[in-house]
Amino acid sequence: MEIPYKIYLEESELPKQWYNVRADMPNKPAPLMDPGTHETATLDELSAVFCRELAEQELDDTNRFIDIPEEIQNFYRMYRPAPLVRAYCLEKALGTPAKIYYKFEGNNTSGSHKLNSAIAQAYYAKKQGLKGVTTETGAGQWGTALSMACAYFDLDCRVYMVKVSYEQKPFRREVMRTYGANVTPSPSDTTNVGRKILAEFPGTTGSLGCAISEAVEAAVSTEGYRYVLGSVLNQVLLHQSVIGLETMAACDKYDIKPDVIIGCAGGGSNLGGLIAPFMGRKLRGEADYQFIAVEPASCPTLTRGKFAYDFCDTGKVCPLAKMYTLGSGFIPSPNHAGGLRYHGMSSTVSQLYHDGLMEARSCEQTSVFQAAEQFARIEGILPAPESSHAIRVALDEAIRCKETGEEKTILFGLTGTGYFDMVAYQKYNDGEMSDYIPTDEDIAASLAKLPEV
Amino acid sequence: MEIPYKIYLEESELPKQWYNVRADMPNKPAPLMDPGTHETATLDELSAVFCRELAEQELDDTNRFIDIPEEIQNFYRMYRPAPLVRAYCLEKALGTPAKIYYKFEGNNTSGSHKLNSAIAQAYYAKKQGLKGVTTETGAGQWGTALSMACAYFDLDCRVYMVKVSYEQKPFRREVMRTYGANVTPSPSDTTNVGRKILAEFPGTTGSLGCAISEAVEAAVSTEGYRYVLGSVLNQVLLHQSVIGLETMAACDKYDIKPDVIIGCAGGGSNLGGLIAPFMGRKLRGEADYQFIAVEPASCPTLTRGKFAYDFCDTGKVCPLAKMYTLGSGFIPSPNHAGGLRYHGMSSTVSQLYHDGLMEARSCEQTSVFQAAEQFARIEGILPAPESSHAIRVALDEAIRCKETGEEKTILFGLTGTGYFDMVAYQKYNDGEMSDYIPTDEDIAASLAKLPEV
Repeated sequence: MEIPYKIYLEESELPKQWYNVRADMPNKPAPLMDPGTHETATLDELSAVFCRELAEQELDDTNRFIDIPEEIQNFYRMYRPAPLVRAYCLEKALGTPAKIYYKFEGNNTSGSHKLNSAIAQAYYAKKQGLKGVTTETGAGQWGTALSMACAYFDLDCRVYMVKVSYEQKPFRREVMRTYGANVTPSPSDTTNVGRKILAEFPGTTGSLGCAISEAVEAAVSTEGYRYVLGSVLNQVLLHQSVIGLETMAACDKYDIKPDVIIGCAGGGSNLGGLIAPFMGRKLRGEADYQFIAVEPASCPTLTRGKFAYDFCDTGKVCPLAKMYTLGSGFIPSPNHAGGLRYHGMSSTVSQLYHDGLMEARSCEQTSVFQAAEQFARIEGILPAPESSHAIRVALDEAIRCKETGEEKTILFGLTGTGYFDMVAYQKYNDGEMSDYIPTDEDIAASLAKLPEV
Repeated sequence: MEIPYKIYLEESELPKQWYNVRADMPNKPAPLMDPGTHETATLDELSAVFCRELAEQELDDTNRFIDIPEEIQNFYRMYRPAPLVRAYCLEKALGTPAKIYYKFEGNNTSGSHKLNSAIAQAYYAKKQGLKGVTTETGAGQWGTALSMACAYFDLDCRVYMVKVSYEQKPFRREVMRTYGANVTPSPSDTTNVGRKILAEFPGTTGSLGCAISEAVEAAVSTEGYRYVLGSVLNQVLLHQSVIGLETMAACDKYDIKPDVIIGCAGGGSNLGGLIAPFMGRKLRGEADYQFIAVEPASCPTLTRGKFAYDFCDTGKVCPLAKMYTLGSGFIPSPNHAGGLRYHGMSSTVSQLYHDGLMEARSCEQTSVFQAAEQFARIEGILPAPESSHAIRVALDEAIRCKETGEEKTILFGLTGTGYFDMVAYQKYNDGEMSDYIPTDEDIAASLAKLPEV
């Protein structure tokens, strides 16, 4: 069968249920834990921070499928299906016998896959009768997605944006404002934790861990508000399974059998969503795939971190999660421009990796941007720096196939576009980008501060 | 038949020929004219500036269909079909009985429909054995599109970017650089015309008309180079007919019969391409449609300009075109942020308008941005300011239908996204945007300098 350049499913073929990979995992991800008592966090405790139904999803590791509410399906129809693209031009340019496919999640104003979970979280908040939600954003993709989702459901949206991004990415901020969101640079003097951090480190430009603490505090201290998060959590991976479900439906429809499935990994939302249903098949013994998580060499959570309970935020107000972590105080070198800078990793992805069901690789950023530029010129899409980590490894795999003559089918997740990342591209274009790999001592020092559980 | 949210044609349904509306026009657009001799420009003369085959297309007003070369069809498959979207959410939010559709051309890295002609022009340049092409860009959409097209065909790309945009839109510039283009702020000291303008107006921030002059001079004075242009010309409208052809195919497939077809109009490339095949049906008496061109009130070419031969550029080195014009010296007020600032209009669109086959309206920019914000929040796409002119009138028409109870089918062209226009959105968000309408005296003074033909 001839494969089109871009496979768009029909609306009738779109997923009506999310897939919960935890149901098929022999070893379930470890539960969230109260940071004070070290007891397993209960539904009631989680419901004080998260919307009730989202807290239920967070804890559900038995139901394989969860219905996607019709309101969310309707919103999905505005920007989904995302195309599964056959990279014919890239294959030709590389002269590889490999077949390369990518699932492109960037064709929406948030510029990434983040919208898939943002709309779900906004929906449940609205359903619960809340006034609004709080969140943090680093690079800004998640904040933008949440702003769009809240505008759609007429919810108030308060975003704590890491100060350095707030200042360096004014256009991201403007997109959020255009969608009606309230954007505050973090750390700020609007929260106790923010004031404390500002007092201790007056010149700080902020971090994701700190912005999370502020957003959580703002949610629990404001009537009618809850906190929402764009990655790491089980509920997020559940919503993001729509990526993998669409991809699998398209593959099955055209009899495409991926050998290797590659995704970039920061908190794990895209990777976890893309691989979920394929991993399900692997776990059930129905098929086998090679899964590769790709992370920055400057923030090597899976490849050099430790599998342990750790704080999710700097202020240590969130539940503890068992995950691969570099320690909640770990901050990538300031020269790091490529995103994916969270110190931890989704518990689900961490468990799958720990159980040997997937691999992980790390890439240095100049090689990532080199892949990004090559991809942009050949395939016509300017990728997000985050997504370009997956491109790097997909190119490496395709080039290896050229050497060995293997006709592998390579599938990767192209999570988003780089239109708001041109400062990083400019650095690369000007030859001013450098690499940095943390030393073993750096990582050991950070890991020494893990909580004793 | 139930209409999906987004109609994507199958690859097999994509156009294989462009449609040349001039073949069906009873009154052909007037020919280009030599600025010195006032004789009709010949194929040989045009071929000194443009690629040979493009010059042939420029002059061809008899062939109704022109084959799209396979290489161009292949490139189109990387980002086309563009979806025809049913704006269900917008209809619901407005409470209108009207059905609203938009053809969305923004799902590619250039962010607009400009890529449709850029790839065609780059192809013919490559086929002719040229080393490279020169062009100008204002807001940057055309320059980005051409950079992408040149990267694909491995052609050198030299872009003269209006200085004020070069400085205010560094990210647009970086996208072009990422695609390997050479970007020069205009006016520059690299051309005679640039040096002359700089000497006369040392503090000038440039204009599109001036950048055109520089790009043309650079092309004709460099061995192996030709000049390419992103709008106004007949050849560009020909290539852009792919928009209308896809739209018409989707409409016919789902039995959608538009009553009103709306497009924003700067030089006319999007509008001309969108309406072309529908206009063909109207001209052949097969169907009737109401066509509406929408332009900024601060640059009201169709609604307040004159139908006459005029210079296409400030330096007066290009052929003269008969078109609606405000005079080649006309520059919109500095507070104008919404694009569409060219002083003239495609000869084809001008002739159709002059013959009463279409209407034109002008909009003030605050009302345009109000429509943009409303659309973004409801339909989830942040539109380009240019495109938002069409949105404004589509909203007005839909609201009128609510008042009258008419169940009209409204179709408009959503030419692109506003991701690189956040400075303008910021102005709007901050309440610092104002309107300006040129006085009759302003326009009369500019028109007084039309060439005597």
